[in-house]
Amino acid sequence: MNAPTTAQHLIPHVQQRPVPDALVAKLKAHFGERCSTAMAVREQHGRDESAFTTVPPPAVVVFAESTADVAQVVAWAQEDRVPVIPFGVGSSLEGHLLAVQGGISIDVGRMNRVLSVNADDLTVTVQPGVTRKQLNEEIKSTGLFFPIDPGADASIGGMSATRASGTNAVRYGTMRENVLGLEVVTASGEVVRTGTRAKKSSAGYDLTRLMVGSEGTLGVITEVTLKLYPLPEAVSAATCSFPSIEAAVRTTIQLIQMGVPIARVELIDQHSVRMVNAYAKLGLREEPMLLMEFHGTPASVKEQAETVQAIADEFGGQAFEWAMTPEERTRLWAARHNAYFAAVQSRPGCRAISTDTCVPISRLADCLLISVAEAEASGIPYFLVGHVGDGNFHFGYLIDPNDPQERATAEALNQQLVARALSMEGTCSGEHGIGLHKMDFLLAEAGAPAVAMMRTIKRALDPHNIMNPGKIFLL
Amino acid sequence: MNAPTTAQHLIPHVQQRPVPDALVAKLKAHFGERCSTAMAVREQHGRDESAFTTVPPPAVVVFAESTADVAQVVAWAQEDRVPVIPFGVGSSLEGHLLAVQGGISIDVGRMNRVLSVNADDLTVTVQPGVTRKQLNEEIKSTGLFFPIDPGADASIGGMSATRASGTNAVRYGTMRENVLGLEVVTASGEVVRTGTRAKKSSAGYDLTRLMVGSEGTLGVITEVTLKLYPLPEAVSAATCSFPSIEAAVRTTIQLIQMGVPIARVELIDQHSVRMVNAYAKLGLREEPMLLMEFHGTPASVKEQAETVQAIADEFGGQAFEWAMTPEERTRLWAARHNAYFAAVQSRPGCRAISTDTCVPISRLADCLLISVAEAEASGIPYFLVGHVGDGNFHFGYLIDPNDPQERATAEALNQQLVARALSMEGTCSGEHGIGLHKMDFLLAEAGAPAVAMMRTIKRALDPHNIMNPGKIFLL
Repeated sequence: MNAPTTAQHLIPHVQQRPVPDALVAKLKAHFGERCSTAMAVREQHGRDESAFTTVPPPAVVVFAESTADVAQVVAWAQEDRVPVIPFGVGSSLEGHLLAVQGGISIDVGRMNRVLSVNADDLTVTVQPGVTRKQLNEEIKSTGLFFPIDPGADASIGGMSATRASGTNAVRYGTMRENVLGLEVVTASGEVVRTGTRAKKSSAGYDLTRLMVGSEGTLGVITEVTLKLYPLPEAVSAATCSFPSIEAAVRTTIQLIQMGVPIARVELIDQHSVRMVNAYAKLGLREEPMLLMEFHGTPASVKEQAETVQAIADEFGGQAFEWAMTPEERTRLWAARHNAYFAAVQSRPGCRAISTDTCVPISRLADCLLISVAEAEASGIPYFLVGHVGDGNFHFGYLIDPNDPQERATAEALNQQLVARALSMEGTCSGEHGIGLHKMDFLLAEAGAPAVAMMRTIKRALDPHNIMNPGKIFLL
Repeated sequence: MNAPTTAQHLIPHVQQRPVPDALVAKLKAHFGERCSTAMAVREQHGRDESAFTTVPPPAVVVFAESTADVAQVVAWAQEDRVPVIPFGVGSSLEGHLLAVQGGISIDVGRMNRVLSVNADDLTVTVQPGVTRKQLNEEIKSTGLFFPIDPGADASIGGMSATRASGTNAVRYGTMRENVLGLEVVTASGEVVRTGTRAKKSSAGYDLTRLMVGSEGTLGVITEVTLKLYPLPEAVSAATCSFPSIEAAVRTTIQLIQMGVPIARVELIDQHSVRMVNAYAKLGLREEPMLLMEFHGTPASVKEQAETVQAIADEFGGQAFEWAMTPEERTRLWAARHNAYFAAVQSRPGCRAISTDTCVPISRLADCLLISVAEAEASGIPYFLVGHVGDGNFHFGYLIDPNDPQERATAEALNQQLVARALSMEGTCSGEHGIGLHKMDFLLAEAGAPAVAMMRTIKRALDPHNIMNPGKIFLL
């Protein structure tokens, strides 16, 4: 018999809260075919990209098409104290979508309209099911773009809920900096608007940023107003291979400390390069590599690139290669975004346990290098990619899900890594969120008084704990 | 007999909550000379820079020297349900410091140490009484600076509490973007830490940003970790006079929409220029003017300035003049920061009622020009300055505080302005906060459900309403 799964281990207080038959009937009567209890649909909504998915699926799935739909589901769920779990595209890595206490999955994927583009103000308002690629496709003609790019083609609602970021955050910030306002359905089924389209405001509590990163535990996001940016006049991307991870990281640290306004600076270790080469049929040098992008006027892009090239030279960077055409650039960045999938394919049947620590930039080399040594010593296949300009990096431990020993080893590696990051005044999660898997880490990082404050806010805004219960902390 | 003052008018539910003699005695025994009930000290702590200060002063002032001091005062205040009001340097413009329900003013001005500078990480941790000028003076040798600059030499604690910004926000953001973490004493006297020194995080609710802008109503800030920036390699400042406010504003809108990374772009109307000339013995052309600053490498600064000069030319900008030396620059910016004081001096005995709307950049010209016409028509002396790159601007109506008619006119102007800004999806407060004077505006802007959510959070975290009660909203 297998050992208990990690998910079961991490969520000891799981208690399935039943969805009364009468509520299911009411939902079916109201939503018709948009309310499903088919097992395949429920199972699809009961998992995400995280490694362990062994809890039962939600009892019901409702495909919402409007804020009013969401508000109706939540209001009824509130009456019966039934959990509701917002679902975008299912690309969470931390178990956010798992129905650990049962309930209703509200799929907002059909709420996928770009509601208004205000090009003159550099803002856009979208429904939560719009994905980041769709958004950029739809606003292409405006000369503007939305820079936040987690690996997956995630939904804007999900990205808001997890305070996501990606490769452009070093220059453009994360969802924390780029959500101007929200429409949210709260636990009572009421519709609340937060923020305005003004660029800044001192008007009352910052409900927008309280909601951003709250992982569906305080409300269902039904509309998002985002900042946009003018497409840079000039863009150039370059790769540079290094004799060691340390050399690549020290190059990064120096360019950040000098204030070079680089748009992207991504570390890809030699394992990732190998996996990406195999997956995407590329011929990148199988050495640690920085993948960089510069945005600005032609003159400033040239100047930035020269500065970085000079720093890289100092640290032994070789083969500084330019991606001159947009097609080449797209191919390179697609390769970076596919690193996770490339890695998972490199070991058939494996699952990836992804780490997500982020440390102050001065500690990045220390934190990374010790962790690389530990990963190498463990014997577990792994890859390492990093938004190193932000001090954020991800190990992916590629484990056999049926081998409890590998799982235990990977978890021990992650625990050591998180402890190290926290001791360096960093965070256990740079961009993935806490979800099911990092509650103990959050407690270690934030401390009991801060987590108690979060719980107090949660209890006040969701007294019956129906909004994505069992995530971030247990009540 | 005078008409009721605005402050009394705006805060109808004022109810002085007594500070028991036994508590005063306990505070005096514990803090000795650092606890004062002298009327002069109390009065100094019962007012700020806002126009009307007619409520009684706090009953007691405690000069805190440590987090433990603050925690002790709050814990005792909690036992007796006595209000506590944090006090930095007293430069609030919205009545934040007024003891509308009595209580204890906790002066954190002596908590003025820079605790740690982490130059390699571009972060600094300070006590709340450190002022923005002191901070920049103390870190001068590191090659870094802290850009947020409200007009006054405000305390970092107060700037955090009001989500302040200033002239550099167009490039560097506001306190919302620049506070990485906090230490806060909550209503129970407990010490909570929020955030880490990592540049980004998805670890749990964003308590840092909930506290930033909460105006002392959720806790007393006792430590602040801030982002710093490398001093730009090159800085140049320029003034440009325009034939009209509209021409200056249209220049600004275009440069923002083009994505020029300008560091500062301030509008100063002809009245402000005249007042500043008189106050600071300058000889600026008494026409609407943009005061600009460019940060970057020498080449990028040159390029930015050329772009802006070309745009300004299109709109009839004249006399584009460079401030070449650091001394000239300092003199210009000091003049800008002193505009408020220059204006108040221009009409002896007057008080300034300052507006603080912020609108999406595309609506800036419309919002501003109608409001200028209204101000001109009113006959009230006024001045206009604006962080126009952010869509934020301030009218200062210079009224005779003893003339109820002038006061009523100024308030009517402000009400029309706020209504206009809200109709344009803007905010009633770009950077000053709500305090006592804008509660109705907040309700109009955010809507009843959002303000109800703020109240719910407040009640949960401060059940006896002792933390700066009567600000932002009434409970």
